[in-house]
Amino acid sequence: MKKILFIACIVLYGCAETPKQEPKPEPTFGIVIHGGAGTILRKNMTPEKEQEYRAVLAEAIQVGHRILKAGGSSQEAVEKTIHVMEESPLFNAGKGAVLNAEGSIELDASFMRGDNLDAGAISGVKTIKHPISAAIQVMEASPHVMLSGAGADTFAAEQGLEIVAPEYFFTERRINALKRVQEAAAAKKTSWTPEERNFLEHQRYGTVGCVALDLSGNLAAGTSTGGMTNKNWNRIGDAPIIGAGTYANNATCAISATGWGEFFIRSVVAHDISALMEYKGLTIQEAAYEVIHNKVAKLGGDGGVVGIDRNGNPMMEMNTPGMYRAHMDAAGNLEVKIYQDE
Amino acid sequence: MKKILFIACIVLYGCAETPKQEPKPEPTFGIVIHGGAGTILRKNMTPEKEQEYRAVLAEAIQVGHRILKAGGSSQEAVEKTIHVMEESPLFNAGKGAVLNAEGSIELDASFMRGDNLDAGAISGVKTIKHPISAAIQVMEASPHVMLSGAGADTFAAEQGLEIVAPEYFFTERRINALKRVQEAAAAKKTSWTPEERNFLEHQRYGTVGCVALDLSGNLAAGTSTGGMTNKNWNRIGDAPIIGAGTYANNATCAISATGWGEFFIRSVVAHDISALMEYKGLTIQEAAYEVIHNKVAKLGGDGGVVGIDRNGNPMMEMNTPGMYRAHMDAAGNLEVKIYQDE
Repeated sequence: MKKILFIACIVLYGCAETPKQEPKPEPTFGIVIHGGAGTILRKNMTPEKEQEYRAVLAEAIQVGHRILKAGGSSQEAVEKTIHVMEESPLFNAGKGAVLNAEGSIELDASFMRGDNLDAGAISGVKTIKHPISAAIQVMEASPHVMLSGAGADTFAAEQGLEIVAPEYFFTERRINALKRVQEAAAAKKTSWTPEERNFLEHQRYGTVGCVALDLSGNLAAGTSTGGMTNKNWNRIGDAPIIGAGTYANNATCAISATGWGEFFIRSVVAHDISALMEYKGLTIQEAAYEVIHNKVAKLGGDGGVVGIDRNGNPMMEMNTPGMYRAHMDAAGNLEVKIYQDE
Repeated sequence: MKKILFIACIVLYGCAETPKQEPKPEPTFGIVIHGGAGTILRKNMTPEKEQEYRAVLAEAIQVGHRILKAGGSSQEAVEKTIHVMEESPLFNAGKGAVLNAEGSIELDASFMRGDNLDAGAISGVKTIKHPISAAIQVMEASPHVMLSGAGADTFAAEQGLEIVAPEYFFTERRINALKRVQEAAAAKKTSWTPEERNFLEHQRYGTVGCVALDLSGNLAAGTSTGGMTNKNWNRIGDAPIIGAGTYANNATCAISATGWGEFFIRSVVAHDISALMEYKGLTIQEAAYEVIHNKVAKLGGDGGVVGIDRNGNPMMEMNTPGMYRAHMDAAGNLEVKIYQDE
């Protein structure tokens, strides 16, 4: 009797687990970018400044979108899109990067492709115009995944990447920022005006990143940053760490993170989002929400992530008041956002 | 009828998923270590050499075991156990570390605790006697997770950690190894005798690591290495990368990896084992098998991992012919192994 009931049960209700039949989706493509997350508030922004950010975000994402639309690779789209943001002094990556405690720059970047899980990263470089391209070159032309410091600069030069003088990266804004942060540190202040607090918090953010799905179904993710203002001891944040700041896997998604790097490393943010999708069946949106709002936030960290899944679904999630970000789908619909509540 | 069958089915067979009631286990403790994985073959080993390795592995693990048995923390057990291996010239960590292309050492280490997910790491240091202690100090005394190069050396000196002259780390064996690897590279050889291949492959391995569960139920993991012989461009491997070489989380397990670092970074090995346990319900053994034999191996990588789960179950998994390793349980049972088939 038990046996009959059991068979009947399986036949009638499919109690036994059956593999899900997911229809193979039509080829599509899409691209998502960020220019950093943080305490970005309307009251601290002028209409002109806001317009400037939105314009560069739109320009950058359209560069990648054109590549994807023409059948180009997600790798190329990510690289060329990030170049635009690295060249803009608005963001904390490439030109306009923040200054470390010694008043010099140390740039980090990483890149990963979802088809073969190839990856490359550089940290603490001082002379490479496009750090994201150096990360890609490490992946393509070295037996390694991650190079650092002077060795990474040497490698990039040997490979013929564009090398620039340190002055190229410096901006008035970042020089002043370092001065203010160091004055505050020297004064050993323990309380701050809201304006000061906002300013100081801003110095921790500004990383740029891009994720893309191309028409061949390949995902790619890249992240590039100058790290934290007044950083010391050759600190490495999450941006050049595969699994923390950057991850891509054609089985799930491509992710680029931006936020308080220490918390993002400890939470292995980018890989954790992918793992929640692969092992628990969460959507990219659910997975990112879980990691940012439950895991990172519970440790006391903040920041944001952008992502795109293997079907082209975009994701932009943060637990900060804002994140410079944009998304563009295959139809060419563009959304550019700054504040969380947009 | 359908309804009745359905209910009967649930009652009789528990088709519907019921939450597993896991009884709270008795407090226990345990410790697992490795001294590197690779092409370790009986035919290349003398009885004396084998005995030497087994003796240091036993000595190291007993140091941690005594701490745990006395109610000490997993953090202290991991640190002090790794000290023994860092001080032994047999392993590629601390004294006896391999030499880079310039004939100098660059040491990497990382540490993570499972209760609060605090973590610390250093890479490319040249003067710190116990790199694992520097990683722990980054965690405890800096706002950062990862420091690198000269900055990390400076930090360690400022913190009063033991600093040694470069000569401390050098051993005849590693100087000869660098010479042989560089001669082989200069000769641009494309085929190798089995003995040469075995020798060259050996130069990629030798990382040490330790994971422990203490009587308070806290997990910790640590990894320390000299990286690859003849490495260039300040290469960073998986050992100092939280999520790749080291991960600990009281919800799941503590993991330390050793192997071909590039593949371990791309596979986010340590965190992936934890994620398979947390999200898919795999045991630590099943999760490690999946990651090493299916994921890392499919990319073309090799190496091994050791781990311990929150209930004290040990794990030692590899896809290489051998891994120097040991496990000791709460009862004091000690197993020391070298070859895969032991």
